[in-house]
Amino acid sequence: MTDLFAATRQKFDLPEGLVYLDGNSLGPLPKSVAARVSREITVGWGEKLVRGWNEHGWIDMQLEAGNRVATLVGAPQGSVIVADSTSVNLFKVLMAALAMAGERRVIVSDRGNFPSDLYVAQGVIGTLARGHVLRIVAPEDVEDVVDADTAVLMLTEVDYRTGRRHDMRRLTEKAHAAGAMVIWDLAHSAGAFPVDLEGCGADFAVGCGYKYLNGGPGAPAFLYIRPDHADQIQPSLAGWMGHEAPFAFDLDYRPAPGIDRMRVGTPPILSLAAFTSALEVWEGVDLAAVRAHSVELCELFIREVETRCPELELASPRDAAIRGSQISFRFHEGYAVMQALIANGVIGDFRAPDIIRFGFTPLYVSAEDVTKAAGIIETVMREKLWDRPEFRTRAKVT
Amino acid sequence: MTDLFAATRQKFDLPEGLVYLDGNSLGPLPKSVAARVSREITVGWGEKLVRGWNEHGWIDMQLEAGNRVATLVGAPQGSVIVADSTSVNLFKVLMAALAMAGERRVIVSDRGNFPSDLYVAQGVIGTLARGHVLRIVAPEDVEDVVDADTAVLMLTEVDYRTGRRHDMRRLTEKAHAAGAMVIWDLAHSAGAFPVDLEGCGADFAVGCGYKYLNGGPGAPAFLYIRPDHADQIQPSLAGWMGHEAPFAFDLDYRPAPGIDRMRVGTPPILSLAAFTSALEVWEGVDLAAVRAHSVELCELFIREVETRCPELELASPRDAAIRGSQISFRFHEGYAVMQALIANGVIGDFRAPDIIRFGFTPLYVSAEDVTKAAGIIETVMREKLWDRPEFRTRAKVT
Repeated sequence: MTDLFAATRQKFDLPEGLVYLDGNSLGPLPKSVAARVSREITVGWGEKLVRGWNEHGWIDMQLEAGNRVATLVGAPQGSVIVADSTSVNLFKVLMAALAMAGERRVIVSDRGNFPSDLYVAQGVIGTLARGHVLRIVAPEDVEDVVDADTAVLMLTEVDYRTGRRHDMRRLTEKAHAAGAMVIWDLAHSAGAFPVDLEGCGADFAVGCGYKYLNGGPGAPAFLYIRPDHADQIQPSLAGWMGHEAPFAFDLDYRPAPGIDRMRVGTPPILSLAAFTSALEVWEGVDLAAVRAHSVELCELFIREVETRCPELELASPRDAAIRGSQISFRFHEGYAVMQALIANGVIGDFRAPDIIRFGFTPLYVSAEDVTKAAGIIETVMREKLWDRPEFRTRAKVT
Repeated sequence: MTDLFAATRQKFDLPEGLVYLDGNSLGPLPKSVAARVSREITVGWGEKLVRGWNEHGWIDMQLEAGNRVATLVGAPQGSVIVADSTSVNLFKVLMAALAMAGERRVIVSDRGNFPSDLYVAQGVIGTLARGHVLRIVAPEDVEDVVDADTAVLMLTEVDYRTGRRHDMRRLTEKAHAAGAMVIWDLAHSAGAFPVDLEGCGADFAVGCGYKYLNGGPGAPAFLYIRPDHADQIQPSLAGWMGHEAPFAFDLDYRPAPGIDRMRVGTPPILSLAAFTSALEVWEGVDLAAVRAHSVELCELFIREVETRCPELELASPRDAAIRGSQISFRFHEGYAVMQALIANGVIGDFRAPDIIRFGFTPLYVSAEDVTKAAGIIETVMREKLWDRPEFRTRAKVT
C-alpha cells in the first residue's frame, strides 16, 4: 500500500510516537495555525486594534472559510458560511426548514443521529409549541417512515458511534418525492470523503469544523443553504452580522442577501482564523484519493484487529460502501480499554455504552500507524491491561 | 489628577504613541493573552489533542470565565456563563423570559438599544408567531410605557451611540412592579463601572466579551440568569453542552442544573482561552476606582474638546450620573473626522449617521492621553483635515 499522503502528513504537528486515531473527535494541529493565530493576536488585535476588522479581513472571514468548506462538500461558492456551533446552526436551518414546510408537523430522524441534533429538534419543538413531533426511528427504517406528514428529514450522514453511512442522494430524493425538506449534518463527512451537496439537492446542511477539518477545539461550524432557498428565509436567529447593512444601524432587521443572513453575532475571530488557516491543508488534496486510502486503512484495521482480538465485536458495517471513515468495536469494558490504549500511545475514543472508536484520516494516518495500533490493541486485550483500576475512573469528558 | 492605573496600563500591549479611545468597540490586547493562546495551541491542541478537554480544562472554561465575569457585574458565582455571541445569548434569554411571562405579549425596548438586540427580538417574534409586539420608544419614555401588558423590558444599560445610561435599579423595580421580566444588555457596562445584577434583581443579562472586558475580536459573550429562575428554564437552544449528562448520549434532552443549561454547542476554545486570560487583568482592580477615574477622564475630555472645537456638538449627557464611560460628539462629517483622527493617531469610532465616539477606559487610558487626543481633534477640526478625499471613502466596517 503506497502512501500518497506522506506530504500532507508533514503539514501537521503530531507528537512523536503517538498513533492518533481520534481526528474524528478533534483533528490535530496543522503547522500553519500557530503562526497565523499569533499574527492575528499580535498584529491584528495588538497593533491594528479595531482596524483589524477591515485591515485584517476579519469581517469577511466567515465567508472566506465558508467558501473553502464549500469546495470540500460539493457546494457552490457563496452557499456556505462558517458561524456559531453545529447545534446553533442546526437550530437555524431547522427553524428555516419548518417555516418552509407549511402545515406538516413531523421531523424524522434516527437513533444513530448525534444526540445534540435531537436535543436541538426538541428545543425547536418546545419553542414553536405548534404540535410538531420528532419521530426517531432505526436508521434502516428512515426511508419507510418519510411520508406526506414529514416536514423535515434531519439526519447525520455518518453515525458517530458505528460509522454507518446513509445514502445521502437516495434519501434526499425519497424525502423530496414525499414533499419533505432535508437537512444533513456532515459532522463526520466533511473532510472524510467527497460530499456532493449540490448534486444530491439537499436543502440544508450543517457540519463541524474541529473533526476531519482540523479547525481546532470548538472551531466554529458551517452551514449550507441550497442557493435557491437562501433568499426566502426569514432567520429565526436574526442578528446584526446577518443584516443587509450592519453598520447603518437601522432599527428594523432586513436580512442580507443569500447565505450572509445566517450570520448572527460577532464571530470569534481567533478561533475562526485558526480554522481558516487549517483549511489551507486541503489545497491540492483529492478527496476521492482520501476516500480510497481511508477505505484501505479501515479494511486493514478490521483485518488486523479481528485476527488478533476475537473478543472485540465489530460495530461498524463491514461493507465500506455504507461506512464513513471510522471503525468501531464493542466491548463491555470499552471505556477501560480505551484508557489503556491511550496510556500505551493509541488515541481513539469511547462512546457510551460500550463502543471504542477509531477514526482514519489519510492526511496524517498511515498504514504503518494502523498496524502499530492493532499491535497495541492486541497487547492491551491479551494482557488485560484494561483491567487495572487506573483505567476505570471516568473523566468528565469521555 | 493622579494616575491610579499606571500598573494596569502595563498589562496591555498598546502601540507606542497611539491614543486608543475605542476600547468600547474592541478592547486592546492584554499582555498575557498571546502566551496563553499559544500554549493552548501548541500544548493543549498540538500535544494533548483530544485529551485537552480534560487535561487543559477546556470543558470547564465557560463556567470559569463566567465566574470571573460574575465578579465584575455583581452576580453570584455560578450564575454567569460565557458562551456564543451576545445576540445568540439574548435570543436564549428572551425566549426564556417570554416563556415565563405567560399571556403577556409586549416586549418594550428603546431606540437607543443596540440594533442587533432589536433584530433578535424581531427574530423571536417572527419565530413564535404568537402575536408578540416589539414596542420601541424613546429612552426617556421607557418607564411610562411598561404596564400590565408588558411581558419583557429589554434594554441596553448604556446607549452605544451617546453613552446615555439607564437607571438599572429603578427600571428593574418599575418593571417588576408591573409584573414584567427584565433583560439587561451590559455590553457597554461590564468592565466600565460597577454593576449590581444581584442587588437590582434583574432577571436576565447578557453582555459582550470584547469591549471593556478586552477579550479579543469576537470574544464569546456572557449570559446571566437570576439563580432562582435558572432551573425553571426549558432552553429554546437545547444542545449537548447544556445537557445534564453530555457524555451519556441519551436521545432525550434533560437540561443541566442551573446556568449550565444555557450552553449549547462546543465552545470556541482558542477565543475562550484568550478571553479567560484577558479577565486576569481585573484581579485586584476596584471597579469603583475605575468608575471614578472614568468620570474624571470624561469630564476632562468634554472640557478640552468643547473649549477647542465649538463646532462639535456634545451628544452625550453632560451629567456623569446618567452616562456610561464614553463621550460622543455630533458632526455632519463625522465619518471623515474620525478617519482623519485615526490617521493622526487617535482611534475612536464613528456611528451612523453623525456620531464620533470615544471610550474612556482607565485600565490603560490616562489623563495625558485625553489631553493629547483633544489637541489632535483640535488640529483636525481647525485645519479641516477631514475635508480630504482619502477620509471620505467608507470602509466595510465603520
